[in-house]
Amino acid sequence: MTLDSVITKPTLLLDENKARRNLNLFIEKIVSQNILFRPHFKTHQSIEIGRWFLDKGISKITVSSVEMAEYFANNGWNDILIAFPVNLREIESITNLSKSISLSLLVESIESIEFLNKMISHPIQVWIKIDVGAGRTGIAWKNLQYIEAIARIVQSSKNMSLSGILTHAGHTYHAAGKPEIKQIYQLSLERLLTIKNYLESQQLGPIKISVGDTPSTSVVENFGEIDEIRPGNFLFYDVQQFMAGVCTISDIAVAVACPVVASHKYRQEATIYGGAIHFSKDYFQMEDGINAYGLAVEMAQDGWNDQKVIGYIKSLSQEHGVIKVNEGEMDKFQPGKIICILPAHSCLTVHALRDFINLDGTRITTLNSRY
Amino acid sequence: MTLDSVITKPTLLLDENKARRNLNLFIEKIVSQNILFRPHFKTHQSIEIGRWFLDKGISKITVSSVEMAEYFANNGWNDILIAFPVNLREIESITNLSKSISLSLLVESIESIEFLNKMISHPIQVWIKIDVGAGRTGIAWKNLQYIEAIARIVQSSKNMSLSGILTHAGHTYHAAGKPEIKQIYQLSLERLLTIKNYLESQQLGPIKISVGDTPSTSVVENFGEIDEIRPGNFLFYDVQQFMAGVCTISDIAVAVACPVVASHKYRQEATIYGGAIHFSKDYFQMEDGINAYGLAVEMAQDGWNDQKVIGYIKSLSQEHGVIKVNEGEMDKFQPGKIICILPAHSCLTVHALRDFINLDGTRITTLNSRY
Repeated sequence: MTLDSVITKPTLLLDENKARRNLNLFIEKIVSQNILFRPHFKTHQSIEIGRWFLDKGISKITVSSVEMAEYFANNGWNDILIAFPVNLREIESITNLSKSISLSLLVESIESIEFLNKMISHPIQVWIKIDVGAGRTGIAWKNLQYIEAIARIVQSSKNMSLSGILTHAGHTYHAAGKPEIKQIYQLSLERLLTIKNYLESQQLGPIKISVGDTPSTSVVENFGEIDEIRPGNFLFYDVQQFMAGVCTISDIAVAVACPVVASHKYRQEATIYGGAIHFSKDYFQMEDGINAYGLAVEMAQDGWNDQKVIGYIKSLSQEHGVIKVNEGEMDKFQPGKIICILPAHSCLTVHALRDFINLDGTRITTLNSRY
Repeated sequence: MTLDSVITKPTLLLDENKARRNLNLFIEKIVSQNILFRPHFKTHQSIEIGRWFLDKGISKITVSSVEMAEYFANNGWNDILIAFPVNLREIESITNLSKSISLSLLVESIESIEFLNKMISHPIQVWIKIDVGAGRTGIAWKNLQYIEAIARIVQSSKNMSLSGILTHAGHTYHAAGKPEIKQIYQLSLERLLTIKNYLESQQLGPIKISVGDTPSTSVVENFGEIDEIRPGNFLFYDVQQFMAGVCTISDIAVAVACPVVASHKYRQEATIYGGAIHFSKDYFQMEDGINAYGLAVEMAQDGWNDQKVIGYIKSLSQEHGVIKVNEGEMDKFQPGKIICILPAHSCLTVHALRDFINLDGTRITTLNSRY
């Protein structure tokens, strides 16, 4: 029975060989520099895929929510960093986690650290979240006094210990290519070292440095004086990373198999069963400036044919995707056929689809699994 | 116990009074014109909310997938239209549905209708999907010969009967205001009447007309010579509809309660726990041309305060939302506080969050419920 013959609706395909190759390259590069590799598991959210990391000796992980920390903690992971500004509303679950695993939290305000100091009854590690320029979360890197004030509260606390400073240089996702990504990395590192040196000069050390985005950890070769690296997306990559020059199209390890439901020859378009609820609505910009939500490729015996793009998703509604089909490829878009979509953003697509099908047909479950 | 005190993570709040008011206005307007109201249940995907319709005598419904049809069929609904181009890969489930309920399908190609003709063993109703200008799915309205060819196959078939022609004038969602929406509606209706008259002149009648988008069914008062109306979004509305002038901000019946996790006074911004996995990534354009993903309002004793917008979501990543806070409102965005977000697109937000909490604290489940 071929994989094609069992697909009836949008189905998340996983090419395990590609994902393991991406993983091995990262392990090699990071571990050889004596840096702790603490991968972000929000990209796959799967116990089974997590075991690939364990098999390679990677047992300390990053997650993006308390719920995800509980899922992995309940399945044997015992050193988890929740890389999200601590949500005070979940203090009960956080306290429970701190009793059973080595738990690391992100703090970026006096209010939050004082609240934790009052509420926490078991040891936790604290990272101070720094904004090196992305403008999402974190304390502005120049605000040394505020960073120091938090560090002092941690230092004087009974159950909290200071791991160091942590950043997510998310602006690399919008960089124009490898040179700009490398430039952002170097500038971020300089800013983090300034903070580290300052805190250590104030007897608040030793201060570790943790960094995390996939673009810079993919393209930078020598990471310099850092202690921990936390990317997630590198495992599967996606078209956003491909368009930014961070990976090749053959490195993308997930695709969504979608039934074609309508063909519109006169406008060189087709409609697939596969919409915003399957892909989310992240997009990338194509060379001609058009926004697209995914690239269409043919299904192949052993997965999908990444050697030839045959169209792109030009619009998404709740369940529909409209494909602009490349010249000469309309015959691949007959109703009832399956085509594969390389997603704009794999993390959101994995979250939306909730289960993987490996190319050998076996199902791989996640935190939000349907089965 | 207040609602605020039980919220720990992004939570979909439902103001039942507002939703029922929206529903009642639609029922009144549609039923008084002797038009069949076949609401689209993809907006709420909930058995419990479906009962509000049943209570008002509305028992024929629209859904957007075979899976959703099965969910409602298994819970007593027995007249269902799947308003999505028939997915031939799901013929087995479709056949099963046709045995137990009155099932209507959308067809827009000769290949699909021939396939159905061969495979279907029980009666089904067929609507021919027409593209009146939206450019998503459907046969171009001018292509009378192709439409006629499909109608002839249905007419000569044993198990299929022709209901008529159906459209979703989805371009009203991008219209610049009420006059343009009304204009699109009138033009669509003219085009559909041309087809109807043609098919009936060819002895293929009687041909019914079914229309469906929320913008036009909200702003048009007199629907003219149509038979069926299928909107869904009107039940909850959202900021896209509010910005388009289709509803007031007080008509919006859902909001997402989100914990604040970080406050950035120096840039007049805050970060909430609430990201792309909770809202999807649909957006609306604000008056100054900026794209936003939701409007922030305060939580109130009886729901949320829709009289005063205090900020908007300027960016979304997987779990984070960054709020641009209005002048003088930063004190509402302290870590640990809850704020409410009126979503850009309620259908996608409901699908992503999977369960509602009514303002009295009771949970309302959906097809994708977590519980």
